[in-house]
Amino acid sequence: MSNEMLIVRIYLSEADRGKRKTLMQEILTLLQDRRAVQAVTVFRGIAGFGASGEVHAADILRLKVDLPLVIEFFDEPKVAEAAIDLLDDLVPRAHIVSWLTRWSGVPTTRSRGGSR
Amino acid sequence: MSNEMLIVRIYLSEADRGKRKTLMQEILTLLQDRRAVQAVTVFRGIAGFGASGEVHAADILRLKVDLPLVIEFFDEPKVAEAAIDLLDDLVPRAHIVSWLTRWSGVPTTRSRGGSR
Amino acid sequence: MSNEMLIVRIYLSEADRGKRKTLMQEILTLLQDRRAVQAVTVFRGIAGFGASGEVHAADILRLKVDLPLVIEFFDEPKVAEAAIDLLDDLVPRAHIVSWLTRWSGVPTTRSRGGSR
Repeated sequence: MSNEMLIVRIYLSEADRGKRKTLMQEILTLLQDRRAVQAVTVFRGIAGFGASGEVHAADILRLKVDLPLVIEFFDEPKVAEAAIDLLDDLVPRAHIVSWLTRWSGVPTTRSRGGSR
Repeated sequence: MSNEMLIVRIYLSEADRGKRKTLMQEILTLLQDRRAVQAVTVFRGIAGFGASGEVHAADILRLKVDLPLVIEFFDEPKVAEAAIDLLDDLVPRAHIVSWLTRWSGVPTTRSRGGSR
Repeated sequence: MSNEMLIVRIYLSEADRGKRKTLMQEILTLLQDRRAVQAVTVFRGIAGFGASGEVHAADILRLKVDLPLVIEFFDEPKVAEAAIDLLDDLVPRAHIVSWLTRWSGVPTTRSRGGSR
């Protein structure tokens, strides 16, 4: 009913490994398999530094540089928060920020959402 | 006078077509021709999935993959909302989120803005 | 103690020059040398236009195009605001926006922060 969406940004590095795949791939797979959110976008930074203090920067011919990644999604606040909870074993919570946004869409009953 | 800006993010896909060009190009052209906002940035995701449920991911040698795009701009709230209205025929409103931010700049009278 | 973080986005162009290096590199170096914030990510847009009115767009074979850059970081509000102040000689304030976000992490005493 509300026109508020919670937008979530998760900060990773390309070097972060999951159990079998990259952490980024495992997060995407989990969010999609559970139908946790409707849409997800992953962005790659071209440079950055992290708590480790290293500077990372992509050169024109990038062979093996560890660049920052951001996984972003937005959904109804309860849905987005459930998705954050779902990631609890994969992502340190210190890497997640979220904030309310005004959504310009028209709320509809979603078929996949069950009793929501 | 206010130091608040409305930041707007519009979520598209590279595959989205406008009438003559890509949807991204038509949105940029419209925003610029009408001088709707002062500055716009387009980001391309490297992976993601959408309501269609498909996973998209860029490989090193990307030939033809449909990646997510985000068009971002910020301006005074009234100006940014007018820009959203301007896009009404081009972009489904469900793809647009916006939120207020604190702007660190000094408000000035803008010559292009007429009586604003 | 708070679980609020201030997220900061700084809008530049690849063509922006500092005194000795690119402006992006000088900002990253300053933020890191002063340990102003814990982590920073730089994103490059693939297209955009600025106050100058020019449209920029990356082609597949990008040789020399001036694309938009965004430098993003988040930290405790006081820390992030001090970082903005630190950049005062480098970046026009009109290019900086910030907003409060909810941080999902657990606040800890940080060794680098002194008496905070």
